[in-house]
Amino acid sequence: MVIIIAKDAPESQVEHVIERLDELGFNVHRSTGIEHTVLGVIGDTTKLDARDWQMMPGVVDAYRVSAPYKQVSREFQHKSTQIKIGNLIIGGDEVHIMAGPCSIESEEQTMIIAEAVHKAGSKILRGGAFKPRTSPYAFQGMGEKGLEIIRKAADKFGMLVITEAMDAESLPLICQYTDIIQIGARNMQNFSFIKALGKVEKPIFLKRGISATIQEWLMSAEYILAGGNRNVIFCERGIRTFETYTRNTLDLSAIPVIHKLSHLPVFADPSHGTGLRDKVIPMARAAVAAGADGLMVEVHHDPEHALSDGAQSLYPQQFQEMMEQIRVIAKVVGRTIADPVK
Amino acid sequence: MVIIIAKDAPESQVEHVIERLDELGFNVHRSTGIEHTVLGVIGDTTKLDARDWQMMPGVVDAYRVSAPYKQVSREFQHKSTQIKIGNLIIGGDEVHIMAGPCSIESEEQTMIIAEAVHKAGSKILRGGAFKPRTSPYAFQGMGEKGLEIIRKAADKFGMLVITEAMDAESLPLICQYTDIIQIGARNMQNFSFIKALGKVEKPIFLKRGISATIQEWLMSAEYILAGGNRNVIFCERGIRTFETYTRNTLDLSAIPVIHKLSHLPVFADPSHGTGLRDKVIPMARAAVAAGADGLMVEVHHDPEHALSDGAQSLYPQQFQEMMEQIRVIAKVVGRTIADPVK
Amino acid sequence: MVIIIAKDAPESQVEHVIERLDELGFNVHRSTGIEHTVLGVIGDTTKLDARDWQMMPGVVDAYRVSAPYKQVSREFQHKSTQIKIGNLIIGGDEVHIMAGPCSIESEEQTMIIAEAVHKAGSKILRGGAFKPRTSPYAFQGMGEKGLEIIRKAADKFGMLVITEAMDAESLPLICQYTDIIQIGARNMQNFSFIKALGKVEKPIFLKRGISATIQEWLMSAEYILAGGNRNVIFCERGIRTFETYTRNTLDLSAIPVIHKLSHLPVFADPSHGTGLRDKVIPMARAAVAAGADGLMVEVHHDPEHALSDGAQSLYPQQFQEMMEQIRVIAKVVGRTIADPVK
Amino acid sequence: MVIIIAKDAPESQVEHVIERLDELGFNVHRSTGIEHTVLGVIGDTTKLDARDWQMMPGVVDAYRVSAPYKQVSREFQHKSTQIKIGNLIIGGDEVHIMAGPCSIESEEQTMIIAEAVHKAGSKILRGGAFKPRTSPYAFQGMGEKGLEIIRKAADKFGMLVITEAMDAESLPLICQYTDIIQIGARNMQNFSFIKALGKVEKPIFLKRGISATIQEWLMSAEYILAGGNRNVIFCERGIRTFETYTRNTLDLSAIPVIHKLSHLPVFADPSHGTGLRDKVIPMARAAVAAGADGLMVEVHHDPEHALSDGAQSLYPQQFQEMMEQIRVIAKVVGRTIADPVK
Repeated sequence: MVIIIAKDAPESQVEHVIERLDELGFNVHRSTGIEHTVLGVIGDTTKLDARDWQMMPGVVDAYRVSAPYKQVSREFQHKSTQIKIGNLIIGGDEVHIMAGPCSIESEEQTMIIAEAVHKAGSKILRGGAFKPRTSPYAFQGMGEKGLEIIRKAADKFGMLVITEAMDAESLPLICQYTDIIQIGARNMQNFSFIKALGKVEKPIFLKRGISATIQEWLMSAEYILAGGNRNVIFCERGIRTFETYTRNTLDLSAIPVIHKLSHLPVFADPSHGTGLRDKVIPMARAAVAAGADGLMVEVHHDPEHALSDGAQSLYPQQFQEMMEQIRVIAKVVGRTIADPVK
Repeated sequence: MVIIIAKDAPESQVEHVIERLDELGFNVHRSTGIEHTVLGVIGDTTKLDARDWQMMPGVVDAYRVSAPYKQVSREFQHKSTQIKIGNLIIGGDEVHIMAGPCSIESEEQTMIIAEAVHKAGSKILRGGAFKPRTSPYAFQGMGEKGLEIIRKAADKFGMLVITEAMDAESLPLICQYTDIIQIGARNMQNFSFIKALGKVEKPIFLKRGISATIQEWLMSAEYILAGGNRNVIFCERGIRTFETYTRNTLDLSAIPVIHKLSHLPVFADPSHGTGLRDKVIPMARAAVAAGADGLMVEVHHDPEHALSDGAQSLYPQQFQEMMEQIRVIAKVVGRTIADPVK
Repeated sequence: MVIIIAKDAPESQVEHVIERLDELGFNVHRSTGIEHTVLGVIGDTTKLDARDWQMMPGVVDAYRVSAPYKQVSREFQHKSTQIKIGNLIIGGDEVHIMAGPCSIESEEQTMIIAEAVHKAGSKILRGGAFKPRTSPYAFQGMGEKGLEIIRKAADKFGMLVITEAMDAESLPLICQYTDIIQIGARNMQNFSFIKALGKVEKPIFLKRGISATIQEWLMSAEYILAGGNRNVIFCERGIRTFETYTRNTLDLSAIPVIHKLSHLPVFADPSHGTGLRDKVIPMARAAVAAGADGLMVEVHHDPEHALSDGAQSLYPQQFQEMMEQIRVIAKVVGRTIADPVK
Repeated sequence: MVIIIAKDAPESQVEHVIERLDELGFNVHRSTGIEHTVLGVIGDTTKLDARDWQMMPGVVDAYRVSAPYKQVSREFQHKSTQIKIGNLIIGGDEVHIMAGPCSIESEEQTMIIAEAVHKAGSKILRGGAFKPRTSPYAFQGMGEKGLEIIRKAADKFGMLVITEAMDAESLPLICQYTDIIQIGARNMQNFSFIKALGKVEKPIFLKRGISATIQEWLMSAEYILAGGNRNVIFCERGIRTFETYTRNTLDLSAIPVIHKLSHLPVFADPSHGTGLRDKVIPMARAAVAAGADGLMVEVHHDPEHALSDGAQSLYPQQFQEMMEQIRVIAKVVGRTIADPVK
């Protein structure tokens, strides 16, 4: 941490700051400039709150110099993490496309969609059985029955399953059925829950909070790694801005930023990121072009009758076209996407 | 809901929209303007997603006309809710000031602060035993020991207790010690949790999510009322904007907005709202002037050694001055604030 | 416009609203639902402010149904606008890459950079002679001397010129040297200025305001078209969000949104959009993948000594690599990018 | 400026950074910590762009330590600026309430409103003759005729005039009629224009840009002071956030922040800050409670027929009630507000 002392601060104030740092076990490096005196704080400053120092008499400002995250950082681990799940590798050369309905609604619906996305080249089936909904009056998901259905459908087509967990209580149940655990944007800073995720043996698909900074997102992953689970996949799903035409603003620059700051893989979700079907394909292409390690895309064969988020679900035919387009783009960035299944 | 049809949409598209509405059990009122045809949808549209209709061929736009919340609305209950807790009334003439440390750190610390805020006129002691922290390496609270301490301190000075619950599992424990359950901003849309709060018999102090719209905030309260607990107190605690000088941007206009839209009381938290001690008193005055039903304020006798949020905690002497100032302001808006205890 | 009447509003309030609409020359279509009465306002509502009606007694809400813009909309003109400048067409099959230094600093600097970007396939040279700077103490541009230099450099390599105008006074001067007039984000709602742009015969490159909604952006273009100049090119250059790691958040979803709402072409500026050199290429690729009609990219052969925005300028070698990558991506979306010049 | 060097950066990279600083004439203070080496840059760093250093090989981060503004800062001038205009002092003990219609619409309208606000205690008449409007089809103001009317009305009641200038060209005309020049939010970073304001002899009322940080706002004032005009009054008028219920989010914490960072006075505009008549009085009270040096409030005797912003204009009777309430609040913060005129 670096602490800037006011030009006219009396020496007693400077000494008080130094004493307080000393009390906490830090070494201090003092340097005197023309405009300001600067104190460099030496030691593990992870637990310090810069505001505490900003509020001290005589202090103009205080900045944290080291990042507050450790295990997720590329400084900690230079090599990109590759996560093996079944015979897939997340974060390797292949860009993976998770696809399926927003909600599991019935076995028939799930089978139709699973077959379509499988044929187009998706190897991971998505679908929610427990749904976080803004309204208590909206469809809340099929629960365990939905988990059974998605597992059955994925197994039929040799796919992996990703589904959302909403709380620590349901983790044991969900782990029986899923290969990857999805954490929704609104739970990114549900700290009781993400602590529990550190103890789970499945990979975690961590969506960015709706107004989370990239640093906060990394800190939430840090909770999971610090808890013992090193398999975290980030997913950019749009942030909230003043723009209302789209549901969220998909921040694709987060992809190269995460790749620079962290060794963990990062996906994008153009369905939630835009909220509008006709914007999904352009943003899916853009995400792959920006270097995403994968996508999560909502697909429904009958979106007008979908029980949730039909407006942002692609038709199977559109999904297939999207796959064809992104296969070419993936090559430009040195990656591959699975071929369609004949 | 109102659905706007494109100028040049063929009749078949209009009919398709009407058929789909009919299928869902709605009556439709069609009116033809010079620019656009407008469909008025008659029935309980609470569960409709406007985007579903926006995506249909021939539709220009779709707007929800009724609010998605019901039980929290002033249309549902004209009279302002007053919540009796012990011999206090929240939402009545008296503006209540909840005060205390960010975290319960020790019995000695809590007793010193409780005595100070009690003497200044506070009747509700705040203090966290379970702390949501951005970093896994930061102080996470004393747990049950902290609950015992705050209860003991509050009882000594005849105060009520408010403390935060972070998950459904800990609710039974926390309910043994507290009078009001605080829900943090990051849990406002933790839907598993807020469903559980509908079944609890204590009043809920619901902080606004860090980027929640007022409508989403009302919807989270709707979950709690729909679950059976009608005693919800809103708390504006600052929203996230692009401004970085303050920790958050305290949106005081939310106070008159909530008072118009809902019958439930609304507080403000100038400590989290600004994050900086020297901004707390001006914003506390402003919140009372804007019509807040109460405040939550962090106080610490030794903020430099506080284990969390010392930078935004008032010294006891400052808290007393704040109380004197807001007593005069409360009168301007036809309210009262308790006198200091001799 | 649609006006929603409160459930319990007395008839006199409804009548007052209708009278006021009648006074303004609108026809009103009244429909009575179970929950609310809805008034449909028929006529040219462009000049109405929905808030005026929201504030009337008995009104719950009021929504504008027609968009406030006309001439820029795709409803007004179905066919995409193609802008011919010299022998180039903006908004046609070819994706155009405007490139050059942030500021014109000297003839030598400009020639070196112009040659490099020309060879890589750029046909439009960018460079600022009048610079909008946050600080009065920062480099403010070379002025007319800079205009002479950029014209000379562009002519040498057979390129077009784009440069920024900051006020109406300098338009005649700038029009002597430039082919396209760039309007900066901070001037997007400088209404005196954009009115003047309607009278100019050069195409306008209109950057999105730093916190402008897409609708406001369209309205600013509407000013220019309404003034008589139909050649407007939009440029998404990043919006302000809470994220601080990047300078701005490049909102690539604006590209398909503009293409849906308007017939005018839309570019992206990954240099300002990210503010960081190592994020420019990924976001340039993403912008082309999202369907941009062109890019504006800052290039400098010696960014460490650049007088402005060196941190976001590509090295010529990087620019060339970018061009190679986006050529492949352009094909995926049915577009072309010029080959490098041997 | 402080530059943080990466843990594993080779010495050659550190040396390159130091050489570049040396080349620019800065002294460098190097200190080596356990985690990182830190370079302290000594000299006038006002013109440096931190991003330039962040992009250099081996650099982790770079922070500006001194504020980029000078003449507006309280470090530069400890004593609060008081601006004498006629026999009024802005920034002294008295809180001044500027009031009047959004637009000057006619002599009759202006006289009625001027008389009402004068009687209630306002000494400064506001009213726009040149109106910045989002739509080219909206009322654009009466122009010079409007200036004549507002001057006449103000003179009749012994008031000062404040009116908006939209461009440098109209300054000479506007200066003939006004006492204070208002600069709208959208022109806060119209750099050509604010440079011109430095040469004007009238005080400048500088509204905060719709998404301006406080630092950018201070920098715009710095332009005016650097140009020679030391009489700038800040006005917080609401910033853009994701919340749509209110037109803007009035950031009242900006008041104590400006008072800490700058010696210049700061007002608040609850009319634009909320956009809704029934939110204006609560926020006016809150602004005075937060320590504002004055308010700007829109008043109209017939808001339903106002040509602009009727929805946010108070009725004269409401304005009088507001004045009564804020008189009491002003005393709490050691200020006064003029008595009503009998």
